[in-house]
Order: sequence, then structure tokens, then C-alpha cells
Amino acid sequence: MADKQRVCIVGSGNWGSAIAKIVGANAAKLNNFEDRVTMYVYEEIINGKKLTEIINETHENVKYLPGHTLPSNVIAVPDVVEAAKNADILIFVIPHQFINRICATLLGKIKPSAVGLSLIKGFDKKEGGGIELISHIINKQLRIPVSVLMGANLASEVAEEMFCETTIGCKDKNMAPILRDLIQTPYFRVVVVEDVDSVECCGALKNIVACGAGFVDGLGLGDNTKAAVIRLGLMEMIKFVDVFFPGGKLSTFFESCGVADLITTCYGGRNRRVSEAFVKSGKTIEELEKEMLNGQKLQGPFTAEEVNYMLKAQNMENRFPLFTAVHRICTGEIKPTELIEYIRNHPEHI
Amino acid sequence: MADKQRVCIVGSGNWGSAIAKIVGANAAKLNNFEDRVTMYVYEEIINGKKLTEIINETHENVKYLPGHTLPSNVIAVPDVVEAAKNADILIFVIPHQFINRICATLLGKIKPSAVGLSLIKGFDKKEGGGIELISHIINKQLRIPVSVLMGANLASEVAEEMFCETTIGCKDKNMAPILRDLIQTPYFRVVVVEDVDSVECCGALKNIVACGAGFVDGLGLGDNTKAAVIRLGLMEMIKFVDVFFPGGKLSTFFESCGVADLITTCYGGRNRRVSEAFVKSGKTIEELEKEMLNGQKLQGPFTAEEVNYMLKAQNMENRFPLFTAVHRICTGEIKPTELIEYIRNHPEHI
Repeated sequence: MADKQRVCIVGSGNWGSAIAKIVGANAAKLNNFEDRVTMYVYEEIINGKKLTEIINETHENVKYLPGHTLPSNVIAVPDVVEAAKNADILIFVIPHQFINRICATLLGKIKPSAVGLSLIKGFDKKEGGGIELISHIINKQLRIPVSVLMGANLASEVAEEMFCETTIGCKDKNMAPILRDLIQTPYFRVVVVEDVDSVECCGALKNIVACGAGFVDGLGLGDNTKAAVIRLGLMEMIKFVDVFFPGGKLSTFFESCGVADLITTCYGGRNRRVSEAFVKSGKTIEELEKEMLNGQKLQGPFTAEEVNYMLKAQNMENRFPLFTAVHRICTGEIKPTELIEYIRNHPEHI
Repeated sequence: MADKQRVCIVGSGNWGSAIAKIVGANAAKLNNFEDRVTMYVYEEIINGKKLTEIINETHENVKYLPGHTLPSNVIAVPDVVEAAKNADILIFVIPHQFINRICATLLGKIKPSAVGLSLIKGFDKKEGGGIELISHIINKQLRIPVSVLMGANLASEVAEEMFCETTIGCKDKNMAPILRDLIQTPYFRVVVVEDVDSVECCGALKNIVACGAGFVDGLGLGDNTKAAVIRLGLMEMIKFVDVFFPGGKLSTFFESCGVADLITTCYGGRNRRVSEAFVKSGKTIEELEKEMLNGQKLQGPFTAEEVNYMLKAQNMENRFPLFTAVHRICTGEIKPTELIEYIRNHPEHI
């Protein structure tokens, strides 16, 4: 590899800005990366000034990561085609509902040899029902190989440089060390696995389990029960990936993207919190999204619905009783108190 | 199997009494068990009356599990030889420091065909240093096969019949379903694995990790860091078992004895709690044991010490940086703030 790798970060929210701190610093420090890192920023006017200008002048994303200085080699660019055009590595970190539009805009405008790295958690909805992995969408639309990065990585704590781990799923043995070098710092520790689909599935499926954990909290069922629900959820995550995205390794679920991210999501996290409130308040998920999340959609119920569509189509609901119960509770089909009846005779116990 | 299996519970503390509720009810209900279940009770005088008499008259262990009714077919016996003499299944559930004495008392007085089931968590100290598994001690001393039962099973919640899971490690394919039938109820769900040593090791090693989680809480390091410490702890548990008790399966660590028990111990539990106080107060572990535990010994620091003895002897401390750091922090050799430096370049990250 004679040429220096050029990096573009497609996205500049909370997580995108936190990762820009890391990627910018590494690109400036390491010889095999071009110093200049572009960051696509959706243009907004903040106090009468363009956000891209503020970032490029003050090196602070005042809207999405205030209080943190971005490396000066990270350049905010309001045009995604302009930002991405020479990049060898495209880091996607935008809300998943925008991915199709961004890919359509970028099609034919990027280097044919570019590779993608998706930090986008959550599934997209397939036409007709079911789920589609974000990395598969990017791969299909832009015809580039796509790796993923997932883990127990609350953006605010990463920005504070608090120690944590992350998981990169990358099939390409040559690209793996390049991505690791670009992302790893003394406080942000990377493990690379080949098992891309499993890594990405973990980042979405955990939210279903977190709803289950929140219901347990709301019902006041205690520590043993919560641990059992989290464990059975993990078993269903493993089984789901095995059925729908086969070929993965069990060990991937021990990585940060698996057990670590699941734990933080089931003890902290908005899916757990809203699900607890769901039980205690008797309100609908929609009502709580309005009250607690300013109308933002909760990932867990949406993921549970699309996963349920796939399970139903395969006549497999009874092999995934926790996922099924969470879905039915979220839709009001059954009461939260019925959760335990669903998992009492779990396939894991036979 | 023509004869009915006779069961004796060796022990009657909080956990022993909770399990007596389950075992007594199942023995009374199932045809392949003798109704009468004996429970060895260390005799004490409570308000002028013998504890065994109180239990046999009121069916309540007023000292160790007040407020819960034991099945009337559970008979308290103050003499362990008398309690155990005809038993086909001996369930050991006593503090681990008494196991050698109890085994010496029982030697030659039990059925030669009897089998053991150990519910005792924690390692024993080997003469000279290092650890010995409790099931191995029972096996060597009484020359009977010994299975184990471990899981995310807070005794008080089990007694309340709150839903949970447990793991039985049993090598004998004929005995496995018998033990499962004896233990399983609609609220206490059993998974049997063959991997006995791994199951037992989990029940002790988790306490080292819980100290690490407590230090993180005390240091205020955030959710990402705590998840990373728990995950790296789990990786070291797996590695430790692989080195010292080889032949186990990775999947065992996904059972209730593994990830589920680890989670509850790292979020609740006395090891976490005292370790958090250790950081915040600057007192020694011994001082905190006196203040917070009425002088009872904390399992984590003791286990960390014995495990460290084994790692040192194999020149392996650097392959287990979390276990090593926890030990050195507990002994005052290093400061809690050095925890992260120890795990920053963890073998998992290479």
C-alpha cells in the first residue's frame, strides 16, 4: 500500500463527532493515512451561522458534541459528494432512515476501490416486511465492501475518553489492521472479528432484549429474573443470527458488540427506561415516545415488530418466545405480566 | 431404576432452606423419589427451643429462611450421619470452610452408590496455595461422583418463587435427568451441561470480576468502562478454566452459571458493594469486612489471592491482567486508579 488512505466520515451527530475525534487524531498521527479527514455535515444554521463554518473555525460541533474539541484536520463539508469523492474509507454514521438517500446521492461519485465502515445501529425495514442489515444496503447500493463497528460505546463517554472496547466486523484480512489502526486509541480498544453480520445483528437485537429487561424492572420481578431474561435474550440473539444470517461464530457474542453492549443497554438505555415506564404507567409506546423522547421512535419495539414478521413467516415464533412476547407486549396484544409465561418453557430449558 | 431415590440436603442456611422448598415439593410429587427428604441442620437453640424441633413442628426455618413454609416431608436431622445414611443423592449446601470436616464425618457412613450435588460456591484453599474445587474435595474424600448447581440464584428471590434459571453440571447422562427432575419447577428452570468444572469455576471467579466492577463504580468511570471490565473479566474466566481445568465448552459460559450470574454479581452483590466502598473510603478490605459484613470474609479478594498464586506459579499474571490488578488493588499493592492501566493492553486486544 503505497498511497495514503483518505478517510471521510459520513455523518456528524453525537456519535459521528465522537468518532471524528478519534479518527482525526489517528489520521494525523499515522503515516499510512492522509492527514485531512472530511466530515459530511448536514448544514444547519446555528445562531445565524453555518454549522460547517463553526466547526471549521472553532473545531467544535456546538450542536451535537458541545464542549469537545475536534482535531483541526477534521474538515466539515456540507456536500456529501464533495466530502466523499476521494475517500478510500467511508465511515457511515447517520440515522439509519437516511442511508438509502445518502447512498443514492453517492452512487457513481465515489472511488470504485473505496471501502465502507458502518457505525449505524439498527435494522432497516425491508419492502414488504422483515429486516435488512444497513451494511447490506450500503454494499448493494454502492457496490463496495462494508465492515461494521459496534460495541458498548455511549458516545458521550467515548468523547470524554473514558476507557472502553469496541468490535469491528471485517471480512477482509488486509483491511482489518488498517481499520483497527484508524480506530484504536489507548482508551478505545478494538477487537476485529470476521463475523460481520453477527456484529451488526447484535447492535439491533439487543434493543428487543432491553425492552424485556425494562418490563421486568417495571413489574418488580427482581435480579434473578432480570438476569434470566437477559440471558434468554442473548440465546435468542444467537439463535436468530444462526437461522437468518448463518455462518457466524459463538465467540462473537462474547465481544463488546455482544454481551457488553447488551448489559449496558439492559441496565441503562432508553429502551429499558421507556419499557419500565410502559408497565408502570399503562400508557402506549407511542404516548411514551412523545412524552419521554420528544416523539423519537424507540428502536426496540420497531425491531421486535420486523423480527416478528420474519419469525412468523418461518413459523418460528415459539422458538423465540422472548422476542415474541416483547413484540406482543409492545403492541398491546398481551399484558406485560404475561412475559414470564412466555419464557417459562423456553426451548433452552428442554 | 426400581428403587425410589432418597434425598438428603446437607445444610440448612438461607440457600439450603430455599432449595429444600423445591426439593421437598418435587420429592413428594414425583414417583421416582422417596417422599421423605432429610435435611441436616446444625443444632442451635432459638428462644430456648432446638432449631430442628422448630423446623419439624412448624416447617419454618425461623433462623435462616423466616416467613417461608418448608414442605412437611422435609425432616430436619441434627446428626449429619443419621441424615445422610440412606441417601442416594446428597445435596451439599454448607459454607465451604466446613466441607472437609463434614466429609470426614460422613466417610464410610454413606451408601457407596450415592451421588453428590454441590451447591457450594467458591474455591477452597489448597495446602501450600492455589485453589481446589469443592466438588473435587467431596469426590476425593467420599469417593462418590459429584455434580454441581450454580446460577443467578439469590436465595431470597428463589424462596419467593420468582422466575429464574440455574445450571447443573453433571457428567453422568443417566443421572442428569434425575437431578433435573428433582430441582426443576415452573419458576426454577434448569439447564444441564456436562461441563462440571467450568460451572463450578464460574461461581467463584465471578467474584473477582465483581470487585473490578465495584472499583469502576467507586472511581466513577461510567457504563462503557464497566461493561468492558465485566467483559474482559468474562474472557479471563474462560481463559482461566481453559488453562487450569481444560476440556470445557465455550457455550457453558452463556448459561445461567456464567453470564447471568456474573451480571447480577457485578450490578448487585456484596463484592461489588464493598469494592466500591474500598475506593471511596480509602479503608482496607479487612476494615470494610468488619464494618459492612459483620466481619464475614469477602469472597472476591480471597479468590483473587488464590488465583493469583496459581497464575504466578505458571508465570501467567500478564495474561490475566484484570485478575492480577484486582488482587493487587485488594492487597494495597497498587492503587484502584491503576486498574485501567493494567487492562489497557489486554491480550484480548492483540
